[in-house]
Amino acid sequence: MELLNKTLKAIASPNEESKIKAKEVWDNLVKPIGSLGSLEEITIKIAGMTGEVHNKINRKAIVVMCADNGVAEEGVSACPQVFTMLLTESMVKGITGLAALSKFTNTDITLLDIGLKGDIDHPKVINRKVAYGTKNFTKESAMTYEEAVKAIEIGIEVGDTLYSQGYDILGTGELGIGNTTTSAAILSVFSGLDPDITCGKGAGLTDEQFSLKKKTLMTGLELNKPNKEDPIDVISKVGGFDVAGMCGLFLSAAKNRKPIVIDGFISSAAALCAVKLNPMVKEYMIPSHLSNEPGAKYMMEQLGLKPMLNLGMRLGEGSGCPLAFQVIEAALFTMDNMGTFKEASINSEVLVDIRE
Amino acid sequence: MELLNKTLKAIASPNEESKIKAKEVWDNLVKPIGSLGSLEEITIKIAGMTGEVHNKINRKAIVVMCADNGVAEEGVSACPQVFTMLLTESMVKGITGLAALSKFTNTDITLLDIGLKGDIDHPKVINRKVAYGTKNFTKESAMTYEEAVKAIEIGIEVGDTLYSQGYDILGTGELGIGNTTTSAAILSVFSGLDPDITCGKGAGLTDEQFSLKKKTLMTGLELNKPNKEDPIDVISKVGGFDVAGMCGLFLSAAKNRKPIVIDGFISSAAALCAVKLNPMVKEYMIPSHLSNEPGAKYMMEQLGLKPMLNLGMRLGEGSGCPLAFQVIEAALFTMDNMGTFKEASINSEVLVDIRE
Repeated sequence: MELLNKTLKAIASPNEESKIKAKEVWDNLVKPIGSLGSLEEITIKIAGMTGEVHNKINRKAIVVMCADNGVAEEGVSACPQVFTMLLTESMVKGITGLAALSKFTNTDITLLDIGLKGDIDHPKVINRKVAYGTKNFTKESAMTYEEAVKAIEIGIEVGDTLYSQGYDILGTGELGIGNTTTSAAILSVFSGLDPDITCGKGAGLTDEQFSLKKKTLMTGLELNKPNKEDPIDVISKVGGFDVAGMCGLFLSAAKNRKPIVIDGFISSAAALCAVKLNPMVKEYMIPSHLSNEPGAKYMMEQLGLKPMLNLGMRLGEGSGCPLAFQVIEAALFTMDNMGTFKEASINSEVLVDIRE
Repeated sequence: MELLNKTLKAIASPNEESKIKAKEVWDNLVKPIGSLGSLEEITIKIAGMTGEVHNKINRKAIVVMCADNGVAEEGVSACPQVFTMLLTESMVKGITGLAALSKFTNTDITLLDIGLKGDIDHPKVINRKVAYGTKNFTKESAMTYEEAVKAIEIGIEVGDTLYSQGYDILGTGELGIGNTTTSAAILSVFSGLDPDITCGKGAGLTDEQFSLKKKTLMTGLELNKPNKEDPIDVISKVGGFDVAGMCGLFLSAAKNRKPIVIDGFISSAAALCAVKLNPMVKEYMIPSHLSNEPGAKYMMEQLGLKPMLNLGMRLGEGSGCPLAFQVIEAALFTMDNMGTFKEASINSEVLVDIRE
């Protein structure tokens, strides 16, 4: 609990002066004020994080939190639980969607066993296993309060290590059969929205499986009664180790004053938990895509963030992050490589018209 | 008219067999069917265009059609008309938003004077001027029918040249003060939507200027009565040389069986004209971003296309295209660099669950 408390206390507000200066840079570039929309907003937000007006991304990584969820035994996923292990192995082999997208964008992957049901002995898999999967939340709490804190602190430690190694930006990813169910549960707790709205068909459920998923979620919420005023209570009762670990990553980013990209539905659930622990964390988050998972838009509403990509993706893994990295890097480059009105020989008299 | 007619006749439907084969490739990769959403759809669409299952983008260019609009003298833009010239010069200097984004993404820019009010004598500006700007459409037709055909054919020629030079994909861009007004007029003609809905504040109008813009548009439509059954009539009466040129680019892409990316509001107006000339052209178009211009979403509805980026941009120039190129290249790379279920050691029995 000590690292978590210290981290929460160390999170500060963005540097407003750097943000103002970054906006001034944009406003002198040869274009109507604000016309590059989110490209401008993202660079201004990053300036607020780092305290530097101009920023560059040299090294980037996506942290993939791999963990199993006890609730999978209720049949809430189209995939058998063993897929968490198989996909983690595929990640090691470099053949997943995230692996391909990361290779294309020159992004490193940090793969973490934070709660797999089995063991993978491979140098690419960092073993920080909290337990061999969570418990089935329709029967008991998914994990203990202490385990939730431990998993969050693992996320903080991993984030701290990567940022200290010189990574300029991180992305959140996960592998865990059943984790759209845990994420929908978290969304329902914080938003008060009905499982009918927060649940989706995950990796491809039938109508029958879908109604089972909703029922499972209701049962879990009724049995555990998570306290929405205590995000750790929520994570421990109906969350997962992957969500907890990613929550810790977000906290680490904010503490280190560095940007972190949110992937899809499950990453957003972790982001929501982090923001509930400390609202200031939001200032260090950049959303990537709007997942095709129906609850994703409510998650973004809860976070008050607007994703830049709309690709109908629902793979998870962190797959939206490399695509967002491309846009973020393009935005930072554009800010530093456009010319000013002066360079365009546009005098200040004309400027009044276009700049106001 | 001969080149235009020949082009329209030469446009064929996509290769369905290649599309099916591309989908088969995706469906064997280690992920739930369809879970990479638009990344899959884009590569399948491109397979249909080229007839090749696997595609790669080695060379890419954005064609920027620069032209002045007579209607600018009505005061429909926040920028004085001279900005078209100044921004074309800025494009030559490489200091615009598009220039920076193109440099970042290794994209070439082809700059065309298709109707600037002044002359720019520079090797980077290809002189294909149809006239020194269009006429003010509140007083007469913007151009003659013959001029519209000529401008479209220039677009076809430029597209044909670039694709024959080995460019694998093109993007459409423009510079032309007043062209959100001409584009809104085109949208109103084809959709029947009121100027109240199709008009926006362009590069930053006041409320008073905005209501003037709508009135101007109404006047132009009432005076010229464009025939929505004849897209060339529409372009000639209330369009611009930039829109006509881009329309030709879209037709060229379809004829050459190559992809072309639509930028924002003005590019979409050209895309709409091209689709009205031959509905099959749509199969060769890839939208990029949803412009912040209010009419943009109706334009996309008319086209039946869903943009992949949501960045609140309203710069024009072609600035959405480099960002879309990044996503398209990532999609093509991912298709060719993921592993199959077999490589993931996932047997066919388990597969039934996840693939159905």
